[in-house]
Order: sequence, then C-alpha cells, then structure tokens
Amino acid sequence: MERFSFNQATARHWALPEAVAGCVAAGVPGIGLWREPVAGYGLTRAAKLIRDAGLDVTSLCRGGFFTADGWREKNLRAIEEAATLGTSVLVLVSGGLPPGSRDIDGARRQVADAIAELAPYAAGAGVTLAIEPLHPMFSADRCVLSTLGQALDIAERFDPGVVGVVVDAYHVWWDDTVYAQIARAGERIAAFQVCDWVTPLPEGVLLGRALPGDGCIELRRLREAVDAAGYTGPVEVEVFSADVWARPGREVLDASVAGYLHHVA
Amino acid sequence: MERFSFNQATARHWALPEAVAGCVAAGVPGIGLWREPVAGYGLTRAAKLIRDAGLDVTSLCRGGFFTADGWREKNLRAIEEAATLGTSVLVLVSGGLPPGSRDIDGARRQVADAIAELAPYAAGAGVTLAIEPLHPMFSADRCVLSTLGQALDIAERFDPGVVGVVVDAYHVWWDDTVYAQIARAGERIAAFQVCDWVTPLPEGVLLGRALPGDGCIELRRLREAVDAAGYTGPVEVEVFSADVWARPGREVLDASVAGYLHHVA
Repeated sequence: MERFSFNQATARHWALPEAVAGCVAAGVPGIGLWREPVAGYGLTRAAKLIRDAGLDVTSLCRGGFFTADGWREKNLRAIEEAATLGTSVLVLVSGGLPPGSRDIDGARRQVADAIAELAPYAAGAGVTLAIEPLHPMFSADRCVLSTLGQALDIAERFDPGVVGVVVDAYHVWWDDTVYAQIARAGERIAAFQVCDWVTPLPEGVLLGRALPGDGCIELRRLREAVDAAGYTGPVEVEVFSADVWARPGREVLDASVAGYLHHVA
Repeated sequence: MERFSFNQATARHWALPEAVAGCVAAGVPGIGLWREPVAGYGLTRAAKLIRDAGLDVTSLCRGGFFTADGWREKNLRAIEEAATLGTSVLVLVSGGLPPGSRDIDGARRQVADAIAELAPYAAGAGVTLAIEPLHPMFSADRCVLSTLGQALDIAERFDPGVVGVVVDAYHVWWDDTVYAQIARAGERIAAFQVCDWVTPLPEGVLLGRALPGDGCIELRRLREAVDAAGYTGPVEVEVFSADVWARPGREVLDASVAGYLHHVA
C-alpha cells in the first residue's frame, strides 16, 4: 500500500474532507488533487486539512491548455497552488487545436514555447511540470501531445527536476513504442497513473474508463516498466467513469485499492 | 476528378445499382466497395453491373480480423471476391484483442503470421493485401495496428505488390511521425482514403466522421505527402456518419465531390 495514491477525481462526488478522512481510514498514504474542488474548499484550508491528516499530495491536476487565451496567468497560478499544497507534481494537459484551426504542428510548437516560458517559474517554486500525453482520441480537442515520445521530445530540453512526464496507462497502453519510451523517460517520470480500458466508449469518450483490472490494459507490465526505468514514486488510481461516480466514495476507494493490489502492485 | 473515388459506405443506405448510376451521372470514375452490400446484391452480378457502368473498383473492404475464429477461410474468400470484382486492393483491418485478452503483443504477432499465410494466395490472385492501421481508439476492439509505422513493419516483409498499406487520413492525422512514415511507405501505399475529424465523438466512436473539409485534418497536406511518396492512385472519400447516412445518396455524393475538390485535390 505504500505507493498507492487515490486521485480524487475517481470519486468525483466525494467532498474533499470526506475523501481525506476516507483515505486515512483506509490506510491510504497519498491523494491526487484537482484544482477546481480544491478551490471550492479553499486552497490554504485544503492544504492544512491534508497536511494535518498526514496525507501526501502526489499530484495536482492540472495546468496546460496552452492553445487557449490566458494560459500564462492560469499556469502561473497553478504552479503556486501546487507549491501551496505541498506537491512537486503539476500535471500539464497541453490543450487541443484552437477553434477552427487545422495547424497541429503550430499548436505543438506553442505548447513547447509555453513550457519553456513557465519552466523558470516552476523551478523557482520547486514544482515539476509533468507533461501528460493524452490518448490520440483527444488530439483535436484536449491535447495535441499524443505519445510519450512527443512529451519526452519537449521535456528533454529541460532539467529533469523542472520538466518531466506523466505515464498514464490509459493514454499510452496501445502504443507499440511505449516500453521503449518508458525506458527512455527514466528519471523524467514524474507520475504514474492507472485505470483500465473498456469498450464501447461513451459519447465524448471522456468518462469511459474503468477501475484497474476491469479492462484490457497490461497494468502490471507497465508498472514494472516504470519501475525498471527507475521510478519509485506513487501509483495513482485515476478513473473518470459515470458508473464509478455513481457509487459511494468509500466503496470506490476500496475498489481502487483492491484493483491496484490485484492488478498493478 | 480523375482520382476521385466514392466509397459506398459513405452513402450506406444507397442501394448498389443507385450508387453506381449516381457515380456515372456525376462523372465519378471510381467506387470503393464493401463485401456485405456486394454479397447482398450478388457478387458476380455486382461485378458485371460495375464493369458495364465503366467504373473502376478502387478497393474492397474488408478482410482481416485475424484474432477471431475462422479468419483463414474468411480472408481467402475476401481475396477471391476482390479478384472477381476486378480490384487489386483488399483492405485489411487486423482485428482487436480476443475477448478477455490483455495480450496485445500476442495479437500483433498473430496478425503478422496471418498475413504471411495469406500472402501467397493474394499474390496468386493478383490482389494486394492493404493493411490499414486504425486510430488507437480502436486498438482494443477492432485493430491492434494503430500506426502507419506498425503497418509498414509488417508490410515490409513482403513484396510491395503483395502487401501494402492504406493511408486513411482519419486514422493517422494525429501522429507526429505520419509524414515520415508516408515517405517511408513509398510504393507500398495501396490506397488513400479521406474524411474529417470532428468532436464530440459519438458513443462507440465509429460513426463520428465528417465530410472532407468539415473538420480539423490537414487533408491536402496528407494528399500532397502521399503524392510526394510516389502514390498516383485514387483518393477515396469514406465517411461513416449517422448524419451523413440520413441524407439522400446523390446529395452525399455531390458533397463528397465538393469536399474533395475544395479540401483535398
């Protein structure tokens, strides 16, 4: 259990104090946070709640969306929030194509430029910018970085403590180069997230994930690969699923722990 | 117009004789066929209808599904059907993971082995096995080959006249290596298909495509890339869309031609 972390988005309707208490009661050492529910509870209040509970904040989701207006201010704020919450991992989702655009190369250059601009601020705050490639089904509308290779092409321009990558099993499992890219990533792996792939995908494809073990991803093989690459950090269970969200938070947490222990650890 | 071809799946509810007559009336030189509607009309009857109309059959969809039982017989039959219809291009969709399996490497090996077994029969029939990588959102349930690079890794083991690849813009546009892989493909490009990417994706993600020009894919750039690689064959418009299917066949054909001329040619 020492590497298990519960991403709060997995039990979306569980209020933060209940999620924190639930993690403590279940012996879970870490929690992954999202900016919106943290802001709803209050940033400094959330930081104190979690610190007092003895939980590690394993990541903060998310910065990024560099192809939208206002990205600079929003991301500087996200870096500050990560520092305040005591996590060194700010997850970045790059953003998709601007409305009406077909220029995916241009959008990718914009992402790289934005990260270069943010890197000094992240370094100053002690926060790692963790670039998360999303599955190519999100290339148009959420994330123009679709593979671990692309994320590393950008990350490698910076100090590994300042810019790293997120390996999320759901987004990369299909890639025939993923094991080579995980080995290449090495110390740049800032976070490792798991859930499972099931079909059919729902409309909008965002909420179609499953708990670890309920789908077709070789989760243990991926965990062993990140370990072999030198990663020793937390394993975060992060599931977006209308079915999972309909269940009570504690039940979802217990199922996440069980899925992790049986299929990932 | 000399390179334009209309894939019959774009106007799914248009009966074959009407589709053939519509293509002739519109000055369209080529048609892409699917096995099921051809079988419904009668194979030799369909072959005669299309030959008498003076249309080229630019491809037959589809063989493949090598991870399912009975793949050998089904694919030998598909090769024969392609030969009977007078097309040299049999599109292969590899198939996904067998039910309950997480062994994607094993499924990929099975695909390569199956193609090796079919290649002599295809060569004897004068048919090119055209491996089509599908978008990674289909990796689990339809096609474990997700990139042009993977398709070429298999195709390159064979004579280019016997095993080639399909470049379908919808499936490959997101790939940051796609232009390098198209250049690598060269004479192995057996077919080039276009439609467009729009969001949100519908449930099941199969019927979310759009007519050329209605989405975010750089279709002309991709067409120029396959041309630069040496491809001189047809450009097939192939759209699966509930919205497009609801429109009259002739209207869909005209919109396909217009989209091709304005955004691809």
